[in-house]
Amino acid sequence: MLKVYGDYLSGNCYKIKLMLHLLGWEYQWHPIDILKGDTQTAEFLALNPNGKIPVVELEDGTHLWESNAILNYLADGSVYLPTEPRLRTQVLQWQFFEQYSHEPYVAVARFIQRYQGMPTERADEYEVCQVRGHKALRVMEKQLQATSYLVGEQFSIADIALYAYTHVADEGGFDLSAYPGIQAWLQRVSQQKGYVGML
Amino acid sequence: MLKVYGDYLSGNCYKIKLMLHLLGWEYQWHPIDILKGDTQTAEFLALNPNGKIPVVELEDGTHLWESNAILNYLADGSVYLPTEPRLRTQVLQWQFFEQYSHEPYVAVARFIQRYQGMPTERADEYEVCQVRGHKALRVMEKQLQATSYLVGEQFSIADIALYAYTHVADEGGFDLSAYPGIQAWLQRVSQQKGYVGML
Repeated sequence: MLKVYGDYLSGNCYKIKLMLHLLGWEYQWHPIDILKGDTQTAEFLALNPNGKIPVVELEDGTHLWESNAILNYLADGSVYLPTEPRLRTQVLQWQFFEQYSHEPYVAVARFIQRYQGMPTERADEYEVCQVRGHKALRVMEKQLQATSYLVGEQFSIADIALYAYTHVADEGGFDLSAYPGIQAWLQRVSQQKGYVGML
Repeated sequence: MLKVYGDYLSGNCYKIKLMLHLLGWEYQWHPIDILKGDTQTAEFLALNPNGKIPVVELEDGTHLWESNAILNYLADGSVYLPTEPRLRTQVLQWQFFEQYSHEPYVAVARFIQRYQGMPTERADEYEVCQVRGHKALRVMEKQLQATSYLVGEQFSIADIALYAYTHVADEGGFDLSAYPGIQAWLQRVSQQKGYVGML
């Protein structure tokens, strides 16, 4: 059985959990506590030399890391990953956007606020996260005013990737009331057959 | 003809240039100056709402953004992108690693040093880039001590993605002499048929 090394509170890990529930696949969850240093042990670094979760262990013992790469692996051949080359590229486009322009701000603000309890030494960084996080949310809003999902009218792993931290953005101090397109999209994602919440 | 909006000094744009030369495709290069604000005009934001280069315009007028997504589009069906699912996932894994754990430090240090001339207000950030950039280089070194390329023995777009900023890491203050695996790999990449340099 497929095994996931992850933390239920982590949006990057939740992407994998949501994907597996939508696909209806069985899996085993191996809990990892990043605050206790679980990702920096020699044992864990043998699974992912970059020391990050999630890691997926396939039945043949192969280990895959990087949440969005794993999503592409799991979704291949399903309705959640288009086969048409331009659409497939747009899925990747939004996933790279997520990791470069969204997660480092929306997720990091939440980490500072929810995991760390807003230490004063990270106050400046938290403010930078607010500015850049809202910039990313505006880019998403523009797309979601035009189409039901990030890549046209079909729900895909681009939506899973960006849903993960956007649906808990309030825990990082982001008020989504100015983003009606995003709010309607969050609803649509949560109504997918097989949907499961973060906790 | 395919059109690239880019800056020759940008590693993210160089990925596309190198890919097109390896494939032997003709293209038109439309120069963009980020320091002059070219990526923030209404005209450019219509091409990429996230205001970043590179952007590729296909012959049918479609615009693709995010350098690594574009690489996947261009390489599809070629020797530079494996079709076997695990290998293809490993290519993506290294590309997401590049955008999350490498580029924000190795490329940003170079931007601060080469584009901006080391302004004192970014000195602390530059130091953080050094620490985290070396962490990313150590992850690459570990892989490149074990295999000739990032995904086994076959040169792929994972290598193009990470070559772009690694081969000019010295411009961001990174001394690569402690990384013999990376140095040998840089050589191997530069010997590919069709290779072109950054400038």
